Amino acid sequence: MNIIDIINKKRLNQALTYDELSYAFNGYLKGDIEDYQMSSLLMAITINGLSFDETYMLTKIFILSGERYHFDKKVCDKHSTGGVGDTVTLVIAPILAALDVPIAKMSGKGLGITGGTIDKLESIPGFNVNLTKKDYINNINKCNIAIGAQTSDLVPLDKVIYALRDVTGTTESIPLIASSIMSKKIASGASFIVIDIKCGEGALIKTKDDANMLSEWLIKLGRRYGVNVKTLITNMDEPLSNSIGNALEVVEAIEVLKGKETRLTKISLEVAATLIAAYKGLTYESGYILAKKVINNGSAYKSFEKWIKTQGGDLSKLKVSKYIFHLKSNKEGIITNVSALACGKLSVKLGAGRLTKNSKIDYGVGIKLNKNKGDKVKVGDLLADIYVPNNDFELSKEDLKIFTIE
Amino acid sequence: MNIIDIINKKRLNQALTYDELSYAFNGYLKGDIEDYQMSSLLMAITINGLSFDETYMLTKIFILSGERYHFDKKVCDKHSTGGVGDTVTLVIAPILAALDVPIAKMSGKGLGITGGTIDKLESIPGFNVNLTKKDYINNINKCNIAIGAQTSDLVPLDKVIYALRDVTGTTESIPLIASSIMSKKIASGASFIVIDIKCGEGALIKTKDDANMLSEWLIKLGRRYGVNVKTLITNMDEPLSNSIGNALEVVEAIEVLKGKETRLTKISLEVAATLIAAYKGLTYESGYILAKKVINNGSAYKSFEKWIKTQGGDLSKLKVSKYIFHLKSNKEGIITNVSALACGKLSVKLGAGRLTKNSKIDYGVGIKLNKNKGDKVKVGDLLADIYVPNNDFELSKEDLKIFTIE
Repeated sequence: MNIIDIINKKRLNQALTYDELSYAFNGYLKGDIEDYQMSSLLMAITINGLSFDETYMLTKIFILSGERYHFDKKVCDKHSTGGVGDTVTLVIAPILAALDVPIAKMSGKGLGITGGTIDKLESIPGFNVNLTKKDYINNINKCNIAIGAQTSDLVPLDKVIYALRDVTGTTESIPLIASSIMSKKIASGASFIVIDIKCGEGALIKTKDDANMLSEWLIKLGRRYGVNVKTLITNMDEPLSNSIGNALEVVEAIEVLKGKETRLTKISLEVAATLIAAYKGLTYESGYILAKKVINNGSAYKSFEKWIKTQGGDLSKLKVSKYIFHLKSNKEGIITNVSALACGKLSVKLGAGRLTKNSKIDYGVGIKLNKNKGDKVKVGDLLADIYVPNNDFELSKEDLKIFTIE
Repeated sequence: MNIIDIINKKRLNQALTYDELSYAFNGYLKGDIEDYQMSSLLMAITINGLSFDETYMLTKIFILSGERYHFDKKVCDKHSTGGVGDTVTLVIAPILAALDVPIAKMSGKGLGITGGTIDKLESIPGFNVNLTKKDYINNINKCNIAIGAQTSDLVPLDKVIYALRDVTGTTESIPLIASSIMSKKIASGASFIVIDIKCGEGALIKTKDDANMLSEWLIKLGRRYGVNVKTLITNMDEPLSNSIGNALEVVEAIEVLKGKETRLTKISLEVAATLIAAYKGLTYESGYILAKKVINNGSAYKSFEKWIKTQGGDLSKLKVSKYIFHLKSNKEGIITNVSALACGKLSVKLGAGRLTKNSKIDYGVGIKLNKNKGDKVKVGDLLADIYVPNNDFELSKEDLKIFTIE
């Protein structure tokens, strides 16, 4: 077997065997296959695709490249393919925990316009995201929640392939996305998983067809491993909540958990209800009622506090920037669009997101939307508060093109 | 501009601009673009193709990456996409020279089953293939022939791209083949070029359609640079001459130049006639008659001797191996196939060709066919002489599967 024959086979759109996939991918992890050969193969895969069977085999090879976690009880997991203002995890984890539905989740850091749960949690002073395998298991037993950074013993192959895809134009491949997500989810030991597939111009998945295909494959891959996978396909044109920026998103999550109804409430209840229903064998409607109940009776917020404390965080020290620029409307009309892409780009410029993997981020900055799509506005109405890093920070007209008013 | 956007564009089968192609390819030559990014782009190009305009732009970028040679008089060039037993250059160069049609050619070393003109010439003791730009110009003025290795100042971009394609499964791309060939031919200063496109299972170009497309593009690329390009499409199923192996091929070229009619005579006269006609503005038939004339009156062989001497070679020292294995027929029937692939593989095993770029080769070994396709044979008839490196050299049944007799 040699790598050039394998690359040529995929270039000619022929199916690869388990042994060929293993030779190429494990060879790359061991350092026998060069970066430039793997990237050539990844491009051939991205253009010509993999069949479902090839994707299943690749997922298996990914999982077998590292450890696999097992918990004392069945646990849930939730994944999003990457959004702007996506604080859902911070809201649903305490809801589930309050209902004795454990959730263990390994999260990524944000990159580009996409925020990361790890960064949001790190905006809480003291919060420890670097959990060991033991911490994951202990915290689940203690407070039903364990959310941290991906550990290095889990799917090491995904880590190196993901890094290479990021710099070789091979991120937008459904089979590669599916095997990357599912290998991590299965290796980290979840039995019930909700995956929120973001779809739209600014997202990794551009079309509804691709989102549907990814959804179907994630469910089928889960089934082969005895894991119950549910998917949601949500639009990425608008930010998911009214807050974009790390500490600001934590603040909004807290408000929602305390009963305030924002745009974040709706999607969070949907995701929570889906997982509660799957875990407890109830209908979606019953799950929904239970989720609302634990918000209203305060037990969800209590679970939140317990969890943050368990991972060392001090909520009293959570801070947002004190420098605020008030973005006001210079037009009368109806808001026809609030651009997630523009919000994401502005948040990166403010310092809330990363341009490269090594960028430092400012937890206190971000955007707080005061108006949403469909709202009527008059000249001078407050559209959004922009939390800037200091008084001298300059915002251009381009930066502020978030709202379309017609 | 950034390389990932450029890779993504080609991945989505969109046309690249001159600036984008230049950013990617010149960036790679400068070291700004990584190997793994260029190989990903090359795979996207190999699968999705380049339009003719993109191929023209890429050829231009290749040419501009190095020097461009100019001769005092117009010169011819001849190129083959790689064959087995392809000694045509050694026969046509003296024919042209005898008719005052100069030929300057930069050649490659053989790799795999494909022989290289440089290796054949180096089998002549003393022959110097490392010509400088000045040598090329001087030798043309002195004896109308200058054939040597590619100089490092010519199309350096092709050199690095070619090496990367070789190890990333991206060799079989018509646009990349076309720009690689034509950039070198144009930069090395030829005005008239014959390109022999080998087509068949063992060749780089597998199908007649691909060969026709390559032919068309080579001619069109030449036209844009004012270069007269003629193409031949020849089958690669059978070896081109009766000799495979470096010194053996030189011996056959000498025999043909001295008037012996072998299979090499036919194709050599065709190529020579094409170039003579183009250079002198004659019909193909008149070119053919002139070519035959200079063989018959001995002036072609005189030109050959003068050329070899000019480049330092001593024909009296040319040697083939004295260890010969006689391959005899064990069957009566008609030869229905003589496999070029099998001859090429055996010649590599004998040591006449290279497995990797650093393999040392044995100039004296090879195969001399005694029978051709269509010949009737009886049991015990000599099919071929195999010039082995020593008496202990072992040949397997598999090695000797050259002839199909039915």
